[in-house]
Amino acid sequence: MRGLGEENVSRLIGIVGRENVLTQTKAIEDYAHDMADYESVPAAVVRPLTEGQVAEVVRLAAMTGFPLIARGAGSSLTGAAVIENGIIIDTRRMDRVLKVDTVNWYVHVQPGISLEDLNKELKPHGFFFPPDPASSYICTVGGAISEGSGGLRCVRYGTMKDWVLALRVVLPNGKAVKFGEALAKNRAGYDLVHLMVGSEGTLGVVTEAWLKIIPIPDVKTKRFMVTFGDWESAGEVISRLRSSRILPNLFEFLDKDNIHALNEKLEMSFDEAEATLLVDVEETQVPVAEEIFQECGAVKIIVARDEEQAEAFYQARAMAYVAIKTLATGIQVEDIVVPIDRLGEFLRFVKGVAAKYGIKIPVNGHAGDGNVHPTILYEREDQKSRETANAAFEEICRQAISMGGSVTGEHGVGMQKPKFLKEQLIAHDGEEALRLMKEIKAVFDRERIMNPGKYVEAA
Amino acid sequence: MRGLGEENVSRLIGIVGRENVLTQTKAIEDYAHDMADYESVPAAVVRPLTEGQVAEVVRLAAMTGFPLIARGAGSSLTGAAVIENGIIIDTRRMDRVLKVDTVNWYVHVQPGISLEDLNKELKPHGFFFPPDPASSYICTVGGAISEGSGGLRCVRYGTMKDWVLALRVVLPNGKAVKFGEALAKNRAGYDLVHLMVGSEGTLGVVTEAWLKIIPIPDVKTKRFMVTFGDWESAGEVISRLRSSRILPNLFEFLDKDNIHALNEKLEMSFDEAEATLLVDVEETQVPVAEEIFQECGAVKIIVARDEEQAEAFYQARAMAYVAIKTLATGIQVEDIVVPIDRLGEFLRFVKGVAAKYGIKIPVNGHAGDGNVHPTILYEREDQKSRETANAAFEEICRQAISMGGSVTGEHGVGMQKPKFLKEQLIAHDGEEALRLMKEIKAVFDRERIMNPGKYVEAA
Repeated sequence: MRGLGEENVSRLIGIVGRENVLTQTKAIEDYAHDMADYESVPAAVVRPLTEGQVAEVVRLAAMTGFPLIARGAGSSLTGAAVIENGIIIDTRRMDRVLKVDTVNWYVHVQPGISLEDLNKELKPHGFFFPPDPASSYICTVGGAISEGSGGLRCVRYGTMKDWVLALRVVLPNGKAVKFGEALAKNRAGYDLVHLMVGSEGTLGVVTEAWLKIIPIPDVKTKRFMVTFGDWESAGEVISRLRSSRILPNLFEFLDKDNIHALNEKLEMSFDEAEATLLVDVEETQVPVAEEIFQECGAVKIIVARDEEQAEAFYQARAMAYVAIKTLATGIQVEDIVVPIDRLGEFLRFVKGVAAKYGIKIPVNGHAGDGNVHPTILYEREDQKSRETANAAFEEICRQAISMGGSVTGEHGVGMQKPKFLKEQLIAHDGEEALRLMKEIKAVFDRERIMNPGKYVEAA
Repeated sequence: MRGLGEENVSRLIGIVGRENVLTQTKAIEDYAHDMADYESVPAAVVRPLTEGQVAEVVRLAAMTGFPLIARGAGSSLTGAAVIENGIIIDTRRMDRVLKVDTVNWYVHVQPGISLEDLNKELKPHGFFFPPDPASSYICTVGGAISEGSGGLRCVRYGTMKDWVLALRVVLPNGKAVKFGEALAKNRAGYDLVHLMVGSEGTLGVVTEAWLKIIPIPDVKTKRFMVTFGDWESAGEVISRLRSSRILPNLFEFLDKDNIHALNEKLEMSFDEAEATLLVDVEETQVPVAEEIFQECGAVKIIVARDEEQAEAFYQARAMAYVAIKTLATGIQVEDIVVPIDRLGEFLRFVKGVAAKYGIKIPVNGHAGDGNVHPTILYEREDQKSRETANAAFEEICRQAISMGGSVTGEHGVGMQKPKFLKEQLIAHDGEEALRLMKEIKAVFDRERIMNPGKYVEAA
């Protein structure tokens, strides 16, 4: 039966007030899909303001057995942020910065603030929070924690898991708990903080977070855009920069399809080369880097002449997804990680898959992490097109697994990849790990209400 | 009944060979205590060479119900590396570097190599592994993972938890499993790697590790030794350097008792000031740092004139524990973390406790982490002295908890602090966290053989 029933809706209204409970189809439309078009229609959306309200909603879900998820901007790409006939807790009214601590170098925040707004608050203090998924302008702290998000700066600074000190969480039993301490070091007990990061809303609802912050660096860098006629050469550059011990702040790549889409859809004007690299290099390392570019057969080496052009290079990479999304009615975004020295080989494989099926698979990604985003284009209303896209998707996942890679580096598993999570773990001697993950899920969520039937549980 | 019995000893010999099974009291003497004099006499020590042998020993333990721990150098300070009438797996024959990967920036090692030897292997490649507990010259990778160790460089680079990419582990059921991937990013499943780091041998035996490495930095720094007449001034310097966004490679402190012990026992010759700070400052930040030293009333500011003197400053801090250990027949090492802006206040409190009980409590620690090591001296054979030391120990732990601190930053819990682990978690809204930790322990160790009765289980 669809819907919560009148009595439960009344209870929700009693908890958060009438204006913060949405149940009408029109009102909850925005919550029925995520950014990659996974769709599930929730029964209700509630917008709490306090941890106490979150706990009451969780207890109601446990009592009635309705599934529940917390959701920020819904910018997930894997179906982790939608739920069929369940309750969505929209955390975005809980968006306060509770403390910026410039001695202990952390910020204490509620989960509903966006990463961009967080960094706006930090800037006047001379600090920043590094993880920067492409969706930073809307994605929330709570969402980024649950997804273990990455981004462009992660080549230097790591992903969300490297930046969370402590959390407050409402558990499926409705009790609030603090995991970790807002301290530079803490060895008191097992590390439950890292268990929450990347748990995709399956273990509890984050209500507060203490995040590490660091000083905005003042190292002088130059931003390069370098183009190549083939992927082998670009891959060789990536490996050689790494083994030359160069640690860039930015190290990205884009293929011809990405650049073409940016030029056409967003009126940019970059060279449409087979492979384009974006690299920040510290001034002292510029000579080494330039030599490597040349020796590997770069077609064109452009140094950003000023801040404005450097920002234009960055925006090309950051906006690639938006440009590509306009090319087809359906997209399937991959999030493969492979050993960095095998990037060129893997990218060749993806292009081979595209040719074999006669489809478009634009590819961009984080060169310095070995993290690749092949984006498979298809037509939503055409079943054959969907099937072809899916066949290509599966081939790409399996190739990654066979190369010792991972099917996800920063987007997560959700509804998109539980099958491949399982294949990966089994192929990489992780069968017992999967068993332990399922048992840990059962320990946290005896009530079986937290984003059920996805991710680890579905694997 | 003591001992394994002849049949089980024969089985162990069948697994690893006669020369790698120790059962005689004299032979196992070294394994009956750790570096802080926790004592428990094991029934047997085995020295496996392969993961397969580790798994067979674990299965034997599970079958017979004998408790089991893996142990490296035994440099633990909390009783985590000793076991009464159980089996110790000494991992130090498994000491190979399996791969140094300078493109993907990791090293793949067996657990028995020491951190110092690991860094010797990395140096010719221009890379290093940052965590550096004072015991680096002997402590093993496996021990450092199990303890989640820290060290002097952690102010800049974090602790072990920030450097482990993936692990192979023999679980209590005797099955080998891989956790995580040797990739820069990986979101495939819950984070079991971090659950292992700092688990103190209670969840499984680490048999291989993939550790992140980074280029040896070439930033120019100056090393300062700065003395103060009181702790308030030193504490003020620490806070002001932090809020001035200075991120040193080294940021340590020593009290008068430490310097006195170093001068007397190790023939060093430093000024015996109330408080001494050691700080590395990047050359561009030297003027700001010097101004802060002066404004806070530094008595003496010494810049290391060359590498040799800089190393002498470092050795003063690194050898402090060795010097202090000679001052009494018994020592109780604390490992408190407090918010950095409350360090001065906390250090004053410790000195007050020492005065109250009429005992010596030399204090040193990691200023930039808020991580303090009060070292309570007592006479082992004198029961009253032991009781007094324990009363002081408990007051210091409780003060840390009440200040929002942690009772352990890098040494762990073991047999030393389960009571305070529990007090801390309950005081800091972590009661449900403790329940979850106990249930996770039960999920991993149904057989109840892995370092039982300590740490989380004992809390």
